[in-house]
Amino acid sequence: MTGGSPPIETSRLRTDIDATAAFGAVDADEGRGRTVLTGSPANGRARDRLVERLEDANMSVRVDAVGNIAGRWTPPGSDPDAAPIAVGSHLDSVPRGGIFDGVLGVYAGVETVRALQEAGRYPDRPVHVVSFTEEEGTRFADGLLGSSVAAGHRSVEDALALTDDDGVTLADALDDIGYRGEGRLDAADWDAWLELHVEQATRLERAGAPVGVVTTIAGVTHGEVTVTGDANHAGSTPMTERTDALTTASELVLAVEDAASADDASDTLVGTVGHLDISPGAVNVIPGEVELSLDVRDISADGIEGVVETLTQELSRLEAERGVTTALVREFDQAPTDMSPRLRESVHAAGDRVGVETLDLHSGAFHDTMSIADVTDAALLFAPSRDGISHSPREWTDWEDCATATAVLAEAVASIGGA
Amino acid sequence: MTGGSPPIETSRLRTDIDATAAFGAVDADEGRGRTVLTGSPANGRARDRLVERLEDANMSVRVDAVGNIAGRWTPPGSDPDAAPIAVGSHLDSVPRGGIFDGVLGVYAGVETVRALQEAGRYPDRPVHVVSFTEEEGTRFADGLLGSSVAAGHRSVEDALALTDDDGVTLADALDDIGYRGEGRLDAADWDAWLELHVEQATRLERAGAPVGVVTTIAGVTHGEVTVTGDANHAGSTPMTERTDALTTASELVLAVEDAASADDASDTLVGTVGHLDISPGAVNVIPGEVELSLDVRDISADGIEGVVETLTQELSRLEAERGVTTALVREFDQAPTDMSPRLRESVHAAGDRVGVETLDLHSGAFHDTMSIADVTDAALLFAPSRDGISHSPREWTDWEDCATATAVLAEAVASIGGA
Repeated sequence: MTGGSPPIETSRLRTDIDATAAFGAVDADEGRGRTVLTGSPANGRARDRLVERLEDANMSVRVDAVGNIAGRWTPPGSDPDAAPIAVGSHLDSVPRGGIFDGVLGVYAGVETVRALQEAGRYPDRPVHVVSFTEEEGTRFADGLLGSSVAAGHRSVEDALALTDDDGVTLADALDDIGYRGEGRLDAADWDAWLELHVEQATRLERAGAPVGVVTTIAGVTHGEVTVTGDANHAGSTPMTERTDALTTASELVLAVEDAASADDASDTLVGTVGHLDISPGAVNVIPGEVELSLDVRDISADGIEGVVETLTQELSRLEAERGVTTALVREFDQAPTDMSPRLRESVHAAGDRVGVETLDLHSGAFHDTMSIADVTDAALLFAPSRDGISHSPREWTDWEDCATATAVLAEAVASIGGA
Repeated sequence: MTGGSPPIETSRLRTDIDATAAFGAVDADEGRGRTVLTGSPANGRARDRLVERLEDANMSVRVDAVGNIAGRWTPPGSDPDAAPIAVGSHLDSVPRGGIFDGVLGVYAGVETVRALQEAGRYPDRPVHVVSFTEEEGTRFADGLLGSSVAAGHRSVEDALALTDDDGVTLADALDDIGYRGEGRLDAADWDAWLELHVEQATRLERAGAPVGVVTTIAGVTHGEVTVTGDANHAGSTPMTERTDALTTASELVLAVEDAASADDASDTLVGTVGHLDISPGAVNVIPGEVELSLDVRDISADGIEGVVETLTQELSRLEAERGVTTALVREFDQAPTDMSPRLRESVHAAGDRVGVETLDLHSGAFHDTMSIADVTDAALLFAPSRDGISHSPREWTDWEDCATATAVLAEAVASIGGA
């Protein structure tokens, strides 16, 4: 090792995140929020600023056909043809999301390169800083859009043809902001991928640990249950003659909660109904149809299947007891994803070298790393989230914690590159 | 009595309802539906057609300041200054409502006048045929809009200033269709009010009785419950750290059902949650806030209060057990309304005279008659609803049943008027 620990500058990293927070900023009673959907002017400005910072750090910038951005640094003395180390995350947000989710990981990557350059610690291979298109899946897809193309899970053509609720294609949305490039960033070419992200949970805060090292990203099943009863007049229909889709749906919401909270369920198992679409939805009409969203996650596929199985049994029971008809459609299944043992070890060792405690934990949320781990070694680092809050203007990670986690990231990148 | 039973013409009544069904007609897989909101072009055309039919029956037509329409017939030999007998209902519908709800009562009134004229049975006082503005309350208010003005419950000025979701006033909406008249139709001037309506329940169908005579219109409480929890990430928030507004709301939906269905509850008690407004309402976010609509009805005020009291206790329990905060706002309370014994007796006697069985029952739905009964003697007649379905394109009442109930109505009007 030469040059000592990479000199992470908290103020520089903070300026990057602060400046990015201004794009798509929303009013909030508490905290700071932003809405940055793919292809929006705010998304364009956030991308423009990143490109400027990458170029400031003497990186060459490439934009691929689905808008993934990669800044490429070839360290002095490195082999330019060696498989690169890639770091990064995403710049898009959910509606009224927080200012750290994704942005921290992208600029931790930029700061890593800047710090390694300043410390004269040159990895033996190129380092790429990447921002993937639409991790959140709020406008065009279910999430992990850009990284799924980079991992080869989805073709460029299929991705560009995706449409939003107004029928606008991803291709046109990227054209709107000038970020429809060429070719395909291929993660299979990388030697390693590392992403730093906010934890969005409270385990680090509770343990008093500044950095988490993810063991497994939980798998997820998204589904939709449709319950069909009889819409009828709320005043003139006796209780005994009702087939109420909403009372049935309410039993299902509680069944999902019960199944995920059962005494014999894993602590990593979670189940959520985030939305009901109720028809006709009038105060004086018994609901005739309800569509119910389902989100079940665990680090074990068996845990997810257990909830789906319980729910399926509940649907049968409710059809028999309440006279409704029901249908369950599984819309999206992602298996649990283990992180690379080699890279996890590198991150723990990096923490030891910079004097920072690192804690093993799982990720309940999915991240672009989930896509990339299918095609190369991947690691996911967490920084603490205050009160575990995310996807909200109240999302917060202390600036010192941002810098500490970035220091571990930079040290890990250096060591993986033999510097 | 002279002239025998009023000669109700089924085909004429059917033509009136059929023609009105064309205004605002909607596509439906089954049945025939219509959407006729106050002030819409469809509402204007339905009103225009009614005015033509009233004038065809030699009635003078008045439109008051809130758009209530009254056709006035002064029978030969009657005292034009005597307190009139009024009959009618409403022409507006809920979105995708049925073709009989309201329309039957208005045209049964027109047919009553036509039949009495043809039979030469002249009541000793004027007969008014009335169509009230916005009974359903779908665009401007909670319902009973025109009749509440006619009963003096709401001033003309307050009514005209009501706005829809887009900020359009009732005054402007009535101007749009040319139905903002002058003055105020005053139901306190009437000797009697009779309304024929579809039952919207199955008691007549089950009993095989063609006509119902309402004893009491159930009272109603409309309320809104707000449940506030913590919106958070559905993947990264363990089950033990959630404050989920939707699981709480689901318990409340089931508590309302339980309270209204309890073994010791009256058969006339009903409780409904027709709508939930879930925020943020995304598949991968734990709901942070839910607004829940409440509709509770009974012929006894105590029955309604019992459900509200049970719900209030549940809110306290859920605040303690789930850590949410809750608020219950009672938005609308209407006490149960007894019908006039004198008019009920007249309707039963009319049924006997025309050879039609009449059945005492209560009304779970509210109707304009609820307003009018506060200021004069009022009666409400029901015709059978197939399968009890209403507020739906599948609403249906056989044409013969429409005519039979109209015959009882006409005979009752004649007898109340001493003809």
